[in-house]
Amino acid sequence: MGSPINVLIWNEYRQEREEERIAKVYPNGIHAQLANLLGEDGDVTVRTATLDEPEHGLTDDALAATDVLVWWGHMHHDEVADEVVERVRRRVLDGMGLIVLHSAHFSKLFKALMGTTCNLKWRADGEKERLWVVDPTHPIVEGIGEYIELPEEEMYGEHFDVPAPEALVFVSWFAGGEVFRSGACYSRGAGKIFYFRPGHERHPTYYDPAIGRVIRNAVRWAAPVARPQRTFDLVPALEPIEAR
Amino acid sequence: MGSPINVLIWNEYRQEREEERIAKVYPNGIHAQLANLLGEDGDVTVRTATLDEPEHGLTDDALAATDVLVWWGHMHHDEVADEVVERVRRRVLDGMGLIVLHSAHFSKLFKALMGTTCNLKWRADGEKERLWVVDPTHPIVEGIGEYIELPEEEMYGEHFDVPAPEALVFVSWFAGGEVFRSGACYSRGAGKIFYFRPGHERHPTYYDPAIGRVIRNAVRWAAPVARPQRTFDLVPALEPIEAR
Amino acid sequence: MGSPINVLIWNEYRQEREEERIAKVYPNGIHAQLANLLGEDGDVTVRTATLDEPEHGLTDDALAATDVLVWWGHMHHDEVADEVVERVRRRVLDGMGLIVLHSAHFSKLFKALMGTTCNLKWRADGEKERLWVVDPTHPIVEGIGEYIELPEEEMYGEHFDVPAPEALVFVSWFAGGEVFRSGACYSRGAGKIFYFRPGHERHPTYYDPAIGRVIRNAVRWAAPVARPQRTFDLVPALEPIEAR
Amino acid sequence: MGSPINVLIWNEYRQEREEERIAKVYPNGIHAQLANLLGEDGDVTVRTATLDEPEHGLTDDALAATDVLVWWGHMHHDEVADEVVERVRRRVLDGMGLIVLHSAHFSKLFKALMGTTCNLKWRADGEKERLWVVDPTHPIVEGIGEYIELPEEEMYGEHFDVPAPEALVFVSWFAGGEVFRSGACYSRGAGKIFYFRPGHERHPTYYDPAIGRVIRNAVRWAAPVARPQRTFDLVPALEPIEAR
Repeated sequence: MGSPINVLIWNEYRQEREEERIAKVYPNGIHAQLANLLGEDGDVTVRTATLDEPEHGLTDDALAATDVLVWWGHMHHDEVADEVVERVRRRVLDGMGLIVLHSAHFSKLFKALMGTTCNLKWRADGEKERLWVVDPTHPIVEGIGEYIELPEEEMYGEHFDVPAPEALVFVSWFAGGEVFRSGACYSRGAGKIFYFRPGHERHPTYYDPAIGRVIRNAVRWAAPVARPQRTFDLVPALEPIEAR
Repeated sequence: MGSPINVLIWNEYRQEREEERIAKVYPNGIHAQLANLLGEDGDVTVRTATLDEPEHGLTDDALAATDVLVWWGHMHHDEVADEVVERVRRRVLDGMGLIVLHSAHFSKLFKALMGTTCNLKWRADGEKERLWVVDPTHPIVEGIGEYIELPEEEMYGEHFDVPAPEALVFVSWFAGGEVFRSGACYSRGAGKIFYFRPGHERHPTYYDPAIGRVIRNAVRWAAPVARPQRTFDLVPALEPIEAR
Repeated sequence: MGSPINVLIWNEYRQEREEERIAKVYPNGIHAQLANLLGEDGDVTVRTATLDEPEHGLTDDALAATDVLVWWGHMHHDEVADEVVERVRRRVLDGMGLIVLHSAHFSKLFKALMGTTCNLKWRADGEKERLWVVDPTHPIVEGIGEYIELPEEEMYGEHFDVPAPEALVFVSWFAGGEVFRSGACYSRGAGKIFYFRPGHERHPTYYDPAIGRVIRNAVRWAAPVARPQRTFDLVPALEPIEAR
Repeated sequence: MGSPINVLIWNEYRQEREEERIAKVYPNGIHAQLANLLGEDGDVTVRTATLDEPEHGLTDDALAATDVLVWWGHMHHDEVADEVVERVRRRVLDGMGLIVLHSAHFSKLFKALMGTTCNLKWRADGEKERLWVVDPTHPIVEGIGEYIELPEEEMYGEHFDVPAPEALVFVSWFAGGEVFRSGACYSRGAGKIFYFRPGHERHPTYYDPAIGRVIRNAVRWAAPVARPQRTFDLVPALEPIEAR
């Protein structure tokens, strides 16, 4: 990869400022720790944006300069302006990669790209999660082991109301008895999307090295390259035809 | 199949009333001919609805009584009220099957379920189309041959900006040089969706017996059955866990 | 479905005769209990065949008369003659459905159809398994709940070395910490294949009503229908071409 | 990618030596021209092997040193020794990438990995082929346009008796009226496989720059990376269980 991958990390950044026990886990915000994780990849330049910035930091210029957008949101999906959501969705369809983390399954953006409710079961008791690799050929699992074990996480359980993934990378086991398709790849238009489940704000998940490796791999995977220029609408015939 | 499948055929029904040459092809509306096609299946009861009916004929009661919705629309997608679109989309997510025909690729409903632009190339010169079966095991191709030949149709060409189909059933060849993924299956929530390309209003496509067979097969395929009752949101653990 | 579905249940039938504790679970052989399960479907006629019959009961005539083959094997895959395996594989490619149960993941037949080792992790401690439905639209899960709980089973764990399923229906949770893609659909040629994990001989799994429902659904799903007659090899052009 | 990708190009290399008109197109063998194509990528080192070498050049050492194998064969698939085929297949399952070109759809190797007949329709009249991109997000189509046009090629037509591709990259249009899924991705074990249709020996297809770009992209895509070490067979429980 010649030029660096420009990543924009979008974080709601409310709970870290409003709840002390969350601030203890992510003192500078979840986005700061995600930026640390991504910064370990020398080919990546990282910027951040949060909900309370003007236009949520998702201006046309910011998006035009972004190769891959990472999104973490939880309690305030409704506060993201519809026109900003549509602007971001259009950028994904035009080629910007998208990494959707944890509770962002309920973001307006992800729901609009999936077309489903994206609903699921959950339980926030800090139980053990084990993410098993089910597609060992996928670049997103480069450099990790057969599974990632997280001692405490929020359970998400099936049925996860999303379209069948184009590639299923991880399936999670939860101590309380559920499973979840926790690493799922999609493409929408010219854009690539990776949904990655772990990341409840109460737990230090984004300090886990394997989790960090997966997110870095996902960013590389989702980064746009020189793709075929697509044309649409009325086109002339390429072959001689008898018009009727 | 014990009870009959209740089908609702939704048609825009403007061009047949406004343009003489379309009225010649479908004197009672495209929906009338689709109803004839479906009526050949004794296990199906058919009703119709059109754009200009109150609520476009898509009331809560009408949808509740519908197992499979067939949708044909072309020039007036924008006139379908957003709240009706959302009501129908929710019914699909709750299990109602959906058959999307031809220019309905640009319906608000299909675009909302796909999350993409659903754009494509087109040319309305009445050229030959040959739909090749690429998945001979699929119930949708029961009883037809290796391909369906339509002497005159509107060309649709790749790139068809939709998510990768979960099952690809047909690929079309066009005399003018293009190809198109013309029979594509998706699932959204508890609902099954089949996009089927042929059906430009100017051509007698819906009188073709093989086309009729495919649509009948698709309706059977998409019909809801007794599916697992899904539960969502906060759930207790099924196994003993150490809460942290 | 007009005519009944002709099912042939193939079982190794060695352990039930050689080990007392297995005979206690399946006194007349696993195939007898599978026949009971399938017999609950009035549209199905059932025959059985076992390893020690001439040609393992898989003669050309037997296969020609079979719509769907159900296969259970465990310790003696190697004793199935290669030419019989190839004969059966060809029948699947020609349209016979195939249900592969439990340890039959290591049958010569399934490995030949998959092209991989079909290897996996295992542990025979009789722990709890919970099969979660991950595709609620699939006909194979008609009439069952969100999950099937089996109090005792043999654990199978990822990575299950099979090609990515065309449709993933179940994912299992095991008490010992593993997950497994336990209900997987494939098509090969004109034939449909369903791999279904549960069924360790030491446990009464095939007496479970939900398991029985799934197997009956799978047989219906896999049953061949009037499929497009495919042609291969040298063919004349359908359109005028300039030969070069 | 730090270290270079080691590619081995395997070619039957009979027709180029036996038929003058083929020798005119590929004077040093198809493998020599494929080596030229791949050599344009500075990160790739290329070796070649042919049918008539000892062990067909596919010794354990040669395979151990190979990251990606490219295979072209046509009239003499049967002469490739079964034990060599199995050796190569095992290497693919262990992570070696595989690019299968044109008539190699009928190679023992590809058929063993697919499990199907891999049969198709064909016609060798040198007609026009147009390969349309149907997945513009795939790395294999980086740097090319919406379609590749080949003025003369051998037609391959559906139904192509292979498993449904995990990713479908190209669909071809042929002047004579057929279509073909001409760029298809699979994974088997830890190995990635790309089937790419063009390449009839009578036509100068492998001199086409876009074709060359695709093959170079495919080699990069298929190259193994540091994948999760998989373990199989009997494993202890990761969680406390009640053995029954």
